[in-house]
Amino acid sequence: MNAITRSTAPVVGLTVPAAVGMSIDEIGTPALIVDLDAFEKNVKTMKEFIESKGLRLRAHAKTHKSADIALYQIAQGGACGVCCQKVAEAEALVDGGVTDVLVSNQVVDPKKIDRMAAMAKKARVLCCVDDAGNIDDLSAAATRHGVTLECLVEVDVGAGRCGVGPGAPVVALAKQIDAAPGLTFAGLQAYQGAAQHVHDFAERKAQIEAAIAMVQDTVDQLKAEGLDCAIVGGAGTGTYYFEGASGLYNELQCGSYVFMDADYQRVLDPSGQVISEFENSLFILTSIMSHAKADKAICDAGLKAQSVDSGLPVIFGRDDVEYIKCSDEHGVIADPKGVLALNEKLKLIPGHCDPTCNVYDWYVAVRGGRVEAVWPVTARGLAL
Amino acid sequence: MNAITRSTAPVVGLTVPAAVGMSIDEIGTPALIVDLDAFEKNVKTMKEFIESKGLRLRAHAKTHKSADIALYQIAQGGACGVCCQKVAEAEALVDGGVTDVLVSNQVVDPKKIDRMAAMAKKARVLCCVDDAGNIDDLSAAATRHGVTLECLVEVDVGAGRCGVGPGAPVVALAKQIDAAPGLTFAGLQAYQGAAQHVHDFAERKAQIEAAIAMVQDTVDQLKAEGLDCAIVGGAGTGTYYFEGASGLYNELQCGSYVFMDADYQRVLDPSGQVISEFENSLFILTSIMSHAKADKAICDAGLKAQSVDSGLPVIFGRDDVEYIKCSDEHGVIADPKGVLALNEKLKLIPGHCDPTCNVYDWYVAVRGGRVEAVWPVTARGLAL
Repeated sequence: MNAITRSTAPVVGLTVPAAVGMSIDEIGTPALIVDLDAFEKNVKTMKEFIESKGLRLRAHAKTHKSADIALYQIAQGGACGVCCQKVAEAEALVDGGVTDVLVSNQVVDPKKIDRMAAMAKKARVLCCVDDAGNIDDLSAAATRHGVTLECLVEVDVGAGRCGVGPGAPVVALAKQIDAAPGLTFAGLQAYQGAAQHVHDFAERKAQIEAAIAMVQDTVDQLKAEGLDCAIVGGAGTGTYYFEGASGLYNELQCGSYVFMDADYQRVLDPSGQVISEFENSLFILTSIMSHAKADKAICDAGLKAQSVDSGLPVIFGRDDVEYIKCSDEHGVIADPKGVLALNEKLKLIPGHCDPTCNVYDWYVAVRGGRVEAVWPVTARGLAL
Repeated sequence: MNAITRSTAPVVGLTVPAAVGMSIDEIGTPALIVDLDAFEKNVKTMKEFIESKGLRLRAHAKTHKSADIALYQIAQGGACGVCCQKVAEAEALVDGGVTDVLVSNQVVDPKKIDRMAAMAKKARVLCCVDDAGNIDDLSAAATRHGVTLECLVEVDVGAGRCGVGPGAPVVALAKQIDAAPGLTFAGLQAYQGAAQHVHDFAERKAQIEAAIAMVQDTVDQLKAEGLDCAIVGGAGTGTYYFEGASGLYNELQCGSYVFMDADYQRVLDPSGQVISEFENSLFILTSIMSHAKADKAICDAGLKAQSVDSGLPVIFGRDDVEYIKCSDEHGVIADPKGVLALNEKLKLIPGHCDPTCNVYDWYVAVRGGRVEAVWPVTARGLAL
């Protein structure tokens, strides 16, 4: 992790679970830990894929919200920059040294538009658009600040969230952007978010093929109007190999690949096997705090230590015990043979990495059982 | 809110969504807002109940993690002190001025035991116990620091989490505490957490009656051994009227009553009506950020702005629109008549208040459409 230079050595105390050099057994729990060997391998694997296809990677920083990790992805992982989902998240990462950021979302609040335009004095800033009135507002702010905002028209390619339909609605917005002072039409945002966690391979592939067809048609219509897409962006960890092979998408936005999570372990390849090019590198370190029943242990990581929206965590490397229930501050662990002891530590693979990282203030980066770095979750909770 | 003196007027910026005096429409979103009229009414309602029954209220601060709110509950709401679930949470509230705190949980990690004993120099400190070895460790720490820790034996009265079974196992631990230097046997922790959100009245009542019977038997067995329970503690917002009428429980630990949430709105009275003595005072203020489809709007409060473990949020005061889906940074709102506009604000009732508060750094307290205070979520994320 030579590229990480921002790592400080914060004083262990009320909020900081560990210090550099500690043994993993000394880390205060619950804590969010990163296995550096697995993390670095994941970053390298994605870099090799990107390079083999001649694509750009714009790593999604909403996964980790960490300037340290973003800078490592850029310096060592082949990333051209990052995506952020919120202006405040982008501001925190730009303050942390990132110089190329796509706010892969709509920014419509006047104050946030103003802050985003101000940020473009310090970094390359791109954003997504799906509304004509918003283009006028972005243009006015860019002009006022004397900056250029690069705009991607967001196409809804099946996620059913933000974005206009493919074809004509995109062309109309692209023309408007192209004519607007202070704005550059930079291409398309075409992320099929709903497909990422579709477990069945064929179904996932079909959803992305449908997305690709919509994007191709839209790119062709834009071209016919003289509008080139410098960026055709999208893809996530669950589908990047489809978009990456399309010859159409040129900027992939994977985020979870650095960490993975329990739900991504349910995403299957054509033979029904778990897709295994990335390893779990993110864990919740938890301790057993009560074992008053012979067959049940209670750990200190509950709903406030993770997000269970995509299912309960999985206990790493153990098949003799199982995390079966979650309340605010407790996890109930089935321990049929009574093997767990008080204060024993377990590593939980979070059900869903992104919202889990968002409840922690620190990552504890470990290698070979030792704490090698402690990174702030730079943009934790920054949603404004 | 005269009792709240810690309120600062932080500078609105990267993390602070509002300033005192602002209109509600100027608050940056997503933000956690507290309706002060409803909040104060809830606090008063519980105070009146407690006083009418001659009980103590030890308000559960895990709900709000706020020193401002805890101090208000003590000064204006009849609370004798607070419960916390974690040592770090307790430390933060003691630093904020709270002088009587029960860590309503097992504390078994040696470093945490040490910190808890140190805290007892600044405040009355109680904790829960369900393990003989832990009693030895607590006694050693209390002796080392020259303090007294008051210990409640935790009885599992049906929640299936921490705590020993009723009767003899409790008596054995109580005797050990009573004989341990630095410790005082203070009574029982008998919280039936699993019953709080049982929607059906009769089923909920039956679960608490079963708990009360176990506690009564245990109190009698302790008495026969010459051990009095100064505290018989437990109860939450879903069942406090049962424990409060038992003549047995004398210290109630309700927390959610100050805020309420969408799941508590599904807890019913004997006639199948929603129990209505408390009002929703906690909301996620969210803005519409995309409306590219005629019948669907996208708001800026997703999984990182709340916990959906107990279901999706409910849009307050609106039956024409519905929050139907949640992803990391977005909420999808069904808007069949297309009535919502970009930047329009909605108030969401969180599905589950406690873990939702834990993702925010600030409460924005509002009255009559104006921001009256901005309170830090003092112990946010403090789980060590």
